[in-house]
Amino acid sequence: MDVAVIGAGSWGTTVASIVARRTPTTLWARRAELAERITAEHVNPDYLPDHELHPDLVATSDLAEALDGADAVFVAVPSHVFRATLAAMDGDVRPGVPVISLTKGFEKDTHKRMTELIEELLPGRPAGVLAGPNLAKEVLEGYAAAAVIATTEEACARELQGVIRSTMFRVYVGSDIVGIEVAGALKNVIAIAAGMAEGLGTGDNTRAMTIARGVAELTRLGIAMGGDARTFAGLAGMGDVMVTCISPLSRNHTVGVRIGQGMTIDEVTAEMDQVAEGVPSARAAVELAEELGVDAPICREVDAVVNAGRTPQQAFRGLLRIEPTHEHAAG
Amino acid sequence: MDVAVIGAGSWGTTVASIVARRTPTTLWARRAELAERITAEHVNPDYLPDHELHPDLVATSDLAEALDGADAVFVAVPSHVFRATLAAMDGDVRPGVPVISLTKGFEKDTHKRMTELIEELLPGRPAGVLAGPNLAKEVLEGYAAAAVIATTEEACARELQGVIRSTMFRVYVGSDIVGIEVAGALKNVIAIAAGMAEGLGTGDNTRAMTIARGVAELTRLGIAMGGDARTFAGLAGMGDVMVTCISPLSRNHTVGVRIGQGMTIDEVTAEMDQVAEGVPSARAAVELAEELGVDAPICREVDAVVNAGRTPQQAFRGLLRIEPTHEHAAG
Repeated sequence: MDVAVIGAGSWGTTVASIVARRTPTTLWARRAELAERITAEHVNPDYLPDHELHPDLVATSDLAEALDGADAVFVAVPSHVFRATLAAMDGDVRPGVPVISLTKGFEKDTHKRMTELIEELLPGRPAGVLAGPNLAKEVLEGYAAAAVIATTEEACARELQGVIRSTMFRVYVGSDIVGIEVAGALKNVIAIAAGMAEGLGTGDNTRAMTIARGVAELTRLGIAMGGDARTFAGLAGMGDVMVTCISPLSRNHTVGVRIGQGMTIDEVTAEMDQVAEGVPSARAAVELAEELGVDAPICREVDAVVNAGRTPQQAFRGLLRIEPTHEHAAG
Repeated sequence: MDVAVIGAGSWGTTVASIVARRTPTTLWARRAELAERITAEHVNPDYLPDHELHPDLVATSDLAEALDGADAVFVAVPSHVFRATLAAMDGDVRPGVPVISLTKGFEKDTHKRMTELIEELLPGRPAGVLAGPNLAKEVLEGYAAAAVIATTEEACARELQGVIRSTMFRVYVGSDIVGIEVAGALKNVIAIAAGMAEGLGTGDNTRAMTIARGVAELTRLGIAMGGDARTFAGLAGMGDVMVTCISPLSRNHTVGVRIGQGMTIDEVTAEMDQVAEGVPSARAAVELAEELGVDAPICREVDAVVNAGRTPQQAFRGLLRIEPTHEHAAG
């Protein structure tokens, strides 16, 4: 099985490197110079300068070349260029070839999930998603980790499971594409909230409360969007929230911490080299919650801070003013 | 409403101190000297030496005196003395007075939950439980935190909610006593597992995987025992697992870390001044899982390490040998 991975950020590069251990794999990088260095030096100097990639991994900046003969395609470009990237792939992906999203976020304005874009732009290809608590650097270093893969046809997910997994990278099969994608997008919002709490100097109780109530909110919203409650309590939901909230390596968590410490969102964004998907996802979450009639106070406060200039202190006080009622209610 | 809190460990003392802000509260301590110092100096030198308690809090080592006139009773003694403590309370708790467990664990051998013991030994008193991601020291310091309270009669939980909660200590009402208690007992086992992973020097992915798969296991077992899946994804489940796994203040997490670093369980136990409930809970979890026909590999490995001399390396390798299948299956 020939595999193409589209997008040479840290996670796309990592997945390409681990799949390359099993099967011929081509990684597409936007910039020719980066592609050349990955092929020649087995390193991604932009995003993973300290990690050796699998020597058999080949990279190219020619999209058609990357896709040529591919029996499965993983797409790991940021959500704001996902549609354009799929459009450019049209004609080079055979019908029946699964296209799996590695991206966590909604399309701006439409709020579409990445697999919805795959189904729209590449119809006739089984769409899927791979997600979980996976810090790219740790997966590359061979620490034990787990993820879940779901595709429109479960047999396809089981086949891909065999290509990706190893003793240390435990890939489970899931059945809930919607839930996994919603969890992946919203967990970044919760990570910003938890980061803000940390940056404000609150304790571990407060972080755990923010995370637990955030997952409860994400679950209510995700169920309203058609997801399965169990997904939000699983690897792509709570598991990914967890690693995003405890690790200093997480971008979205870092955004929250910096804002909590007093920086503005513009200052934080300026110092980052990759997109923090939680910022647009917070806006999408609020709009989706309104459409669906779900109360989402944590997403609302995060959105107000990262997209509308509210201070984290105001957000925190706003949340504490809500009177707790039943655990399954909002707030 | 007069409140009695039975047990002057760190959590019992903390709950007594926060309730004392609202209403007359008496704390029972086993040792007369400790009771005297709490009343006279507003400090618990044994468990919370650096924290000032509410000045109105009164302590006594006379159980009948502590319970005299109490309209609600919270019990915060370790699980292995819970039955004997309730037996000693008989005659001093009026019928209709709610008795709320603050203890996380099962009774040894019988595997009964603490509210089952309350119903057995103090029939006619509404039984309940208060739990959540609450590190005693942080609650006392006034950091924002949340908990959930559930009683056999929900009106009673709502009344107690009003006595315990403050702006910073957010108490939600829950409906699932069984789930809250099972989560409280089993989260300590997962905390030991996550601590072991940390002590072995694995990454944040591995910790998040251990926690996520641990919560999945706890959920399967908890549902089999009659709990509601949502509880395990809530404050008393995932929330409490989270704080127990991220905080250096958690005893059960510390037990796991030390074992991961190479100490034996006896060495670890010898250096602790309070009980790590996860050690007996691991045994109970394995026995319950067998009775109920639920596969619980993480609990099994933790039990083998803390109760049967298996090394954490063997446990970790044992878990990695299980082939991942569907996310909702065991392993």
